[in-house]
Amino acid sequence: MTPQAPGPAYRRLSVEERRSQLIDAALSLFAHRAPEEVSLDDVAEAAEVSRPLVYRYFPGGKQQLYEAALRSAAEELEQCFDEPREGPRLARLSHALDRYIAFVDQHATGFSALLQGGSVVETSRTTAIVDGVRRAAAEHIYHHLGITGPGPRLRMTVRMWITAVEAASLIWLDEGRQPPVEELRDWLVEQFVAVLTVTAGRDPQTAALVAALAEDA
Amino acid sequence: MTPQAPGPAYRRLSVEERRSQLIDAALSLFAHRAPEEVSLDDVAEAAEVSRPLVYRYFPGGKQQLYEAALRSAAEELEQCFDEPREGPRLARLSHALDRYIAFVDQHATGFSALLQGGSVVETSRTTAIVDGVRRAAAEHIYHHLGITGPGPRLRMTVRMWITAVEAASLIWLDEGRQPPVEELRDWLVEQFVAVLTVTAGRDPQTAALVAALAEDA
Repeated sequence: MTPQAPGPAYRRLSVEERRSQLIDAALSLFAHRAPEEVSLDDVAEAAEVSRPLVYRYFPGGKQQLYEAALRSAAEELEQCFDEPREGPRLARLSHALDRYIAFVDQHATGFSALLQGGSVVETSRTTAIVDGVRRAAAEHIYHHLGITGPGPRLRMTVRMWITAVEAASLIWLDEGRQPPVEELRDWLVEQFVAVLTVTAGRDPQTAALVAALAEDA
Repeated sequence: MTPQAPGPAYRRLSVEERRSQLIDAALSLFAHRAPEEVSLDDVAEAAEVSRPLVYRYFPGGKQQLYEAALRSAAEELEQCFDEPREGPRLARLSHALDRYIAFVDQHATGFSALLQGGSVVETSRTTAIVDGVRRAAAEHIYHHLGITGPGPRLRMTVRMWITAVEAASLIWLDEGRQPPVEELRDWLVEQFVAVLTVTAGRDPQTAALVAALAEDA
């Protein structure tokens, strides 16, 4: 409406920038409050915009904003496991876990609310997004371990470990972020090697992997 | 209304018996169909009673019946872990797992739907029931292992393993109940010992437990 370029404080955001700004504001609120305790008013206030503007971007209201925020967090989470494929395999897994734990730390309440279930904002769509992240994490882990075509026993072992890591994250948040990050990370990696070693006794593919990990070290 | 005792086929059930009959009928349906695909009509038909009778017992409708069925299943599931406290500790854990896997086998679809989340029948109440079962399972495991006052590292290890066992159950159902029950059970017990052994390196209480388990064997 105005031909002059607005000053930086009033710079007009592009549609994508505005959308990201609202999602970021929502994620910062979800980090400390359960999704059901965050209103669109709160998001408008945190983003310093009007409520109608929030509704213009998310006409489906809170549920739509929540799902958009969840998708954005899911993309960020998938990046955590996308480590360059070089260096010792377990070191790469450690780096991925460091980033994962930092993500959990940052999104604390929203992460817990999502994974603990029973939330009013949980739907088959949100469940599908979370399952997508789990699948992506498993794929990244296979890549880091140099596995193509994981068999059923190796797949079950990896999926069980991913679930156990999620459980550990929730307990870690619950217990005031104890043990310290480095200890948690090393402990989780050691548990992974331990359960792989158990599976190796029942599965030649996993046995070959465990032998390769020992050579790395 | 009639002074003669009715024949066995038409025996009038007590309130409690009728309630149990309806819950059993619901559980048998939930074993093969997702909760959202089971109507009160289906339950009435399976129990061979009228729909108004189902509503008389469960005036809150399908959600109330679902929660009652879930509570009944939760009690049964808690029993799985209530093994007599004698004999070698890991043998007791194996027996408990045998019963747990039989439970999963029997309640297949309902078990999956409940744990996979995003179901329309999932509420904070159903989540609380499931969490109650997890807590009870952890308590039974401490008893079997002869642990009083588990510290944070041992607690985290046990809770992670319980979650991993749940994940394994879901995958096992998904993959046509493979591997065979005995192999799955032994594999899960071996994984438990393996992760306890990892934790033993960081926690004296767990180290004492692992030493005691080795003496049992």
